[in-house]
Amino acid sequence: MKEIITSSQNRFIKLAASLKEKKFRDELGLFSIEGVRLVEEAAQANWSVEACVYITGAEEDQRVHDVLLLLQSKNCRMIEVSAAIYGKITEVKQPQGIMAIMKKREYRLIDCLANVEKPLLVVLDEVQDPGNVGTIIRTAVAAGCTGVILTKGCSDVFAAKAVRASMGSLFYVPIFEGLSQDEVINSLDKYDIRILVTSLEDSTIYFRTDFNQSVAVVFGNEGNGVSRKLLEVAIERLHIPLLGNVESLNVAASAAVILYEAVRQRQ
Amino acid sequence: MKEIITSSQNRFIKLAASLKEKKFRDELGLFSIEGVRLVEEAAQANWSVEACVYITGAEEDQRVHDVLLLLQSKNCRMIEVSAAIYGKITEVKQPQGIMAIMKKREYRLIDCLANVEKPLLVVLDEVQDPGNVGTIIRTAVAAGCTGVILTKGCSDVFAAKAVRASMGSLFYVPIFEGLSQDEVINSLDKYDIRILVTSLEDSTIYFRTDFNQSVAVVFGNEGNGVSRKLLEVAIERLHIPLLGNVESLNVAASAAVILYEAVRQRQ
Repeated sequence: MKEIITSSQNRFIKLAASLKEKKFRDELGLFSIEGVRLVEEAAQANWSVEACVYITGAEEDQRVHDVLLLLQSKNCRMIEVSAAIYGKITEVKQPQGIMAIMKKREYRLIDCLANVEKPLLVVLDEVQDPGNVGTIIRTAVAAGCTGVILTKGCSDVFAAKAVRASMGSLFYVPIFEGLSQDEVINSLDKYDIRILVTSLEDSTIYFRTDFNQSVAVVFGNEGNGVSRKLLEVAIERLHIPLLGNVESLNVAASAAVILYEAVRQRQ
Repeated sequence: MKEIITSSQNRFIKLAASLKEKKFRDELGLFSIEGVRLVEEAAQANWSVEACVYITGAEEDQRVHDVLLLLQSKNCRMIEVSAAIYGKITEVKQPQGIMAIMKKREYRLIDCLANVEKPLLVVLDEVQDPGNVGTIIRTAVAAGCTGVILTKGCSDVFAAKAVRASMGSLFYVPIFEGLSQDEVINSLDKYDIRILVTSLEDSTIYFRTDFNQSVAVVFGNEGNGVSRKLLEVAIERLHIPLLGNVESLNVAASAAVILYEAVRQRQ
């Protein structure tokens, strides 16, 4: 199953390099993950690994060696390249020399909600920073969330920075991306999921909110907060009290506080 | 009070450029902050602004104009430079063209604890990522913490990335940096502050911990957690339950969860 690619003009190498751009990730339904830890996570998570690309000699590292074997045993396409060719596709300054090309998964909300008594969903509404998006996904998985919905204006969850910040947790939670605010509202309404939004104005203190029911909590853009449409339809607005001299919390910190309040209430 | 500097060999420009390095920040007791938002924050926070450096023409922006006036009224040293010279001292790719040189503050723990009934302190133990350090300081201020202590191995809180992530909140909380673990333990012991550490092993679930007393909560290194010394002296170990398939939470997310549980219990 092993191939060796020696030309940077090779079609596969061009494809792999194109995945740095959201446009091509969307078009091809693929994304890449890099580094031994993420590739291990992908191999163990039972996701479809389309191909694994690694630098000649990278397998001298024991962990790389082990994960290459694991992927091979799963009949994954294995591609060996020189450091120079790897340089064309990497987004890392000092790469570990191992990368996987992954196929995005399509989820349906109805499937995710089946057998879940009280869904706890996260909605990211035009969250801009890929680090925040990835960190919130990691927190959502830790808090046992049912799914994460991202509106159209969000930073791409499959961009390298977001994937890295998620620490591979994105393999373990259904992610719905690219929805308009109207689509989010209609889907949640259809399944009787109550929309809670974070907002500093006219809002309840978050620990007085009842999370022990089917809810979706909306976190907004770093500068502008939650968009008007979602603010208007929300059943409740909630805020985190700010005791010191700051205008707001970081959005990933806010998500951690609120999702774990839900965990506390639901235990 | 306005000076114009036209040579990049000027001593002040060399000093300002040197503040990119921790070594010189420590030696000089100075640090720099960049961008109109942070300079506004510094000007309003009543910190000592040693000098303000800005590009000729930057004051055409209304906010820059206003903050320059404010600093001038405080008799701050005002230094106008060309974009080329500013380029020598900036750490930003697309600078707004305004920067302030700040004097670090020296705090004494005894002063911070005066008139505080039940101190809530944060200890960062070899936290490596400047973004995490800055974000935790922002959360600590929001949660009304009494102070933030950083052990020697921590990322520098006065590095540009940490200052940016703090969103200027570092002006509003006493920060104690560069302490050894032994110094942290002795100081907290002296003032009868109970040490709580986050740890996945042999630990209580965080919301069963009593935060309604004088406590310092220790958050550890991203990879290795809290150091052995602090683990050993802790009065209680606590953890955040992980319901999904992740090894841990991001340390700044953990800090948000735990510090706001303290806020909730103390209200």
